[in-house]
Amino acid sequence: MERIFSGMRPTGSLHIGHLSVLLNWIALQDQYECYYGIVDWHALTTGYEDRLDLPALIRDIALDWLSVGLDPDKCSILVQSRVKEHAELHLLFSMIIPISWLERVPTYKDQIQQLGKEGGKDLSTYGFLGYPLLQAADILVYKAHAVPVGEDQLPHIELCREVARRFNHIYGPVFPEPKSLVGKVPLLPGVDGRKMSKSYNNAISLTAPTAEINKKVQQMITDPARLRKDDPGHPEVCIVFKFHQIYSPEADEVETNCRGGKIGCVACKKHLAANLDKLLSPFRERRAYWEKPGRVEKVLRDGEERAREIVTATMKDVRAAMGL
Amino acid sequence: MERIFSGMRPTGSLHIGHLSVLLNWIALQDQYECYYGIVDWHALTTGYEDRLDLPALIRDIALDWLSVGLDPDKCSILVQSRVKEHAELHLLFSMIIPISWLERVPTYKDQIQQLGKEGGKDLSTYGFLGYPLLQAADILVYKAHAVPVGEDQLPHIELCREVARRFNHIYGPVFPEPKSLVGKVPLLPGVDGRKMSKSYNNAISLTAPTAEINKKVQQMITDPARLRKDDPGHPEVCIVFKFHQIYSPEADEVETNCRGGKIGCVACKKHLAANLDKLLSPFRERRAYWEKPGRVEKVLRDGEERAREIVTATMKDVRAAMGL
Repeated sequence: MERIFSGMRPTGSLHIGHLSVLLNWIALQDQYECYYGIVDWHALTTGYEDRLDLPALIRDIALDWLSVGLDPDKCSILVQSRVKEHAELHLLFSMIIPISWLERVPTYKDQIQQLGKEGGKDLSTYGFLGYPLLQAADILVYKAHAVPVGEDQLPHIELCREVARRFNHIYGPVFPEPKSLVGKVPLLPGVDGRKMSKSYNNAISLTAPTAEINKKVQQMITDPARLRKDDPGHPEVCIVFKFHQIYSPEADEVETNCRGGKIGCVACKKHLAANLDKLLSPFRERRAYWEKPGRVEKVLRDGEERAREIVTATMKDVRAAMGL
Repeated sequence: MERIFSGMRPTGSLHIGHLSVLLNWIALQDQYECYYGIVDWHALTTGYEDRLDLPALIRDIALDWLSVGLDPDKCSILVQSRVKEHAELHLLFSMIIPISWLERVPTYKDQIQQLGKEGGKDLSTYGFLGYPLLQAADILVYKAHAVPVGEDQLPHIELCREVARRFNHIYGPVFPEPKSLVGKVPLLPGVDGRKMSKSYNNAISLTAPTAEINKKVQQMITDPARLRKDDPGHPEVCIVFKFHQIYSPEADEVETNCRGGKIGCVACKKHLAANLDKLLSPFRERRAYWEKPGRVEKVLRDGEERAREIVTATMKDVRAAMGL
């Protein structure tokens, strides 16, 4: 069975904008041997001054993953900082990777502009420059054959493949060159039409209870030209409809009714809220199960143990190849 | 008792040019809790293409240290790559250290010039830039109070102090700021008058047997103006005399006899060779003891165990301070 690694930074509760990635991970559980990492060291690359409460954030994201349906019997969930081999392989890679390769990663200059100059983050560090190399180590320490990613991460996977090639070229064949599995990530706006983001307070949390879902959907902006409920609507400018397209199997019908002035915005919102509630309700149930003391901790311990088996074997190969 | 860390790269057998550093380490054994590291990861920063046989080189340098008189009952000898916390702390430091601090280390540009452009080494790597940061991690993971170094390493210790200060400033007081213990390192020429170096084949190995010492001393260049043995000599231009100054307690007498034409160069060389042989002979004896199967390995295992105790405690403090 081919192997997969993917990860997320533990920087706060997930929202439904993250759902498509997670549903993709869940689908992959049955086709691959999956390692999903909570990459807490990465959370430091862009936020060393933030004094994050990482133990709480780690528990939180693990709960989110399990609630949505990652199954610890089918995949391994691990915390990066507990598997020191990620750091060891990163250090060994650093010896053979030109600085220029890292400077040329497109996200490097983008993020320095966006998060750094505009966002006030200090990204001038050695670690921020090396962050795609740490990602390469995260992936290659599992000898992963594939990595499910969003399109924005493609340059990082390309770097990872180059790192594997360079290592193999210098020391002999140790690593596969992992391929990207680009998941379809529909562009989901926040309830105010901007990008969905916790920091804009426009997100619907994966754990939102029914009342909160209703409230958030009520806030959504609909077609401003529609004054009475039998005016013909324009779904293409309506946030509610964008959500229907993703979350309502009957979206076509919704569209027809809206354009025909057959359904008012209030009813249409109730319809969406009910669908979202139906979507999130099993997550809440599973969360109640996983929240019980000790359960998440056991999942992370088991995941760490399974991870250790693989990375110990990989590092043995690496050290043998390098003559260490 | 205050703590010390110092290290050497395992890049080949040591010669008497290394002796003053080692004798200093031996003297410090009684005054400090000493951790001496065989820093094999550092050997990769400037030689990833060299395909070094590191296991053999590690055993070799450990034997050299023990032969000269490092006493595993008084100090801990450890192999860096076996103590993964060096890599972990290096990674954590990388998140808070500006690239510019590393670019400004004076040895960085010097070595790129000397080893890189002139020596043909590839020093354009991410790891070579970060090498003084790995040194800082090597030292601080032991919370060392002091570091015995040569003058050329002073900028690295200054960086190490800055790293400690920055970490303490951001996350709270965890690290001491280690001070430099600059040892007197007399400038020892090779037998041909150039810098003593294995690669120039002008070095006297710490393990040289009597016959080899005699041969190397015979090769030394003396005062070329002295044709007959009762001509007055000029010790200031004589390699043999430079060695007498360091290794012969009776160097003053040697100088008087040379200037007075009372001793010929052949006899003077025999005198020096006998002194060097007396110096190295206990090393050879100790080496015969340590060479027995399993002995070096036990020293390294014990050192690793003692190191692990300290670094485990340090990393606990580090993770607590960073909220990991």
